[in-house]
Amino acid sequence: MSPTPLDELFEAAAAGNRRAMGKLLTMVEQPGGAASEVSERAHRQAGHARVIGITGAPGAGKSTITGRLAAASGAERPAVLAIDPSSPLTGGAVLGDRVRMDNHIGSSSFIRSMATRGHAGGLAVAVPDAVRVLDAVGCDPVLVETAGVGQVEVSIAAAADTTMVVVTPGWGDAVQANKAGLLEVADVFAVNKADRPDARGARRDLELMLDLGPEGDWRPPVVLTIATENEGIEALWVEIERHTAHLRESGALGRRRGLRLRNEVVDRIELGLRGRVLQIIDSEAGSKALGRVERREVSPGSAAEALLASSNPQHPEES
Amino acid sequence: MSPTPLDELFEAAAAGNRRAMGKLLTMVEQPGGAASEVSERAHRQAGHARVIGITGAPGAGKSTITGRLAAASGAERPAVLAIDPSSPLTGGAVLGDRVRMDNHIGSSSFIRSMATRGHAGGLAVAVPDAVRVLDAVGCDPVLVETAGVGQVEVSIAAAADTTMVVVTPGWGDAVQANKAGLLEVADVFAVNKADRPDARGARRDLELMLDLGPEGDWRPPVVLTIATENEGIEALWVEIERHTAHLRESGALGRRRGLRLRNEVVDRIELGLRGRVLQIIDSEAGSKALGRVERREVSPGSAAEALLASSNPQHPEES
Repeated sequence: MSPTPLDELFEAAAAGNRRAMGKLLTMVEQPGGAASEVSERAHRQAGHARVIGITGAPGAGKSTITGRLAAASGAERPAVLAIDPSSPLTGGAVLGDRVRMDNHIGSSSFIRSMATRGHAGGLAVAVPDAVRVLDAVGCDPVLVETAGVGQVEVSIAAAADTTMVVVTPGWGDAVQANKAGLLEVADVFAVNKADRPDARGARRDLELMLDLGPEGDWRPPVVLTIATENEGIEALWVEIERHTAHLRESGALGRRRGLRLRNEVVDRIELGLRGRVLQIIDSEAGSKALGRVERREVSPGSAAEALLASSNPQHPEES
Repeated sequence: MSPTPLDELFEAAAAGNRRAMGKLLTMVEQPGGAASEVSERAHRQAGHARVIGITGAPGAGKSTITGRLAAASGAERPAVLAIDPSSPLTGGAVLGDRVRMDNHIGSSSFIRSMATRGHAGGLAVAVPDAVRVLDAVGCDPVLVETAGVGQVEVSIAAAADTTMVVVTPGWGDAVQANKAGLLEVADVFAVNKADRPDARGARRDLELMLDLGPEGDWRPPVVLTIATENEGIEALWVEIERHTAHLRESGALGRRRGLRLRNEVVDRIELGLRGRVLQIIDSEAGSKALGRVERREVSPGSAAEALLASSNPQHPEES
């Protein structure tokens, strides 16, 4: 059998052709078309890359630190997946970040931005697919950087082998990190912009919060960095590698990845069901039920229950 | 027919009996049991109360402002529904807020706290039901105060006739409010703690952001308040009433409430479907499919699709 165009695309991407990599990522980002074919194929070949999630407050220097880490990894083909926020107001700043990252990252690195805009709930499935493609074509490590500390962004960064949280002395204290749910997901902390006053105070606060937290078999190390000066980046990379080794030795890596796949399947089923909800609501039965709710003849709960009961696409009348 | 115990409970609550009100709220908060009966009945009687959502960053003084507003409304039976955060760390502060609120609120007001913990996605349906009960037994206005500016909290506060956003000079600038999606949902702004430096600057920033936003038929007014001193609260209440009048005159009130009911039905259907997802995943077919995904024989997308297709509870084989 002669190779299909998709075979050729995967081969070129595996050989390091950036255009081929970009094309595969575009295919997988756009639902429909060849997306599921690419995902299917990528999944069969993937599972080798270390996936590192990076999150933290806007302005903490995540992009610079990510670019520096990719270079410090010493890997042949590191990749960065940067999840951009959808806000038009911060678009400019992020663009600036990208440019800064391009200056710091090694020339061998592959960088790809994904906009959150328009993806909505779909981001939870679009990001794993992009990681899958990068993994399948031989990129390692894959660094997934999110723009902020919202619920969605934190959960994306947490869907990794190792999750790094970047804080700054200026961001306030460790309480902020805790509120945003960052303490729970962090495997490694970077206190960036450590040339600012009270960087040591920020580290001490984090250590205190960690003292108060549950005792596990891994205590997240806290590394001081000045990413713009490339200071502390080597030490940070060492800690990330130490965490990977810990995961492998303890057998947690397999469990973590299994859980990640499970969550992705759940997210995908939910996404499919959400499509059904809108079908239900937009149906004749749906608008009739809504009318009754508005006239206060039935409660929203009863209406939802009745619509759910009648929502089975393969109804007995078919057979 | 003699009155049922539920008849008697509703009658007592309508007469202002606080224990009866509390009991109905507890019933509706606990899924199963009489929850749907109470909701059904409350829905038929509701639709009269003005519902006011209040959100803003932690520490902005929302609880104090809410308590003061309830008193300033001059209403006979105002009610406050306070949605508490689930974080154990901030629990203490919130308790303090509650105590402070109790000091400021009129003695006629009814206050109820709802914890977010344990409700998870269910909060989107638990809150409307609690509002429904308060509305049905004659409370008006119903003030729904959320603890922060997370996605869930903002959407709860936005599910109101009038949504008030509380900011402080100390919180930073209007950019923060915009990032949190607050500009889009705000009908009225309060700049609280206006005795702090740069309160006027905060107002100016908000006005500027509003200038940049889309032009509508309602421009959110910005009111300076010092809630602890009861300053600016009357002016704030006047703006809220002005907004209610605007909604009534423009016909937007009916549309807003219709949309709110529609969203609630959608949320309830989604909640029901989410239960199905977990059933699917926990089924034999689910764990088989997950095993194949982990062994990289099929992609998460294919597995989800196959499970979805087989998830119709009323399969032809039944008939």
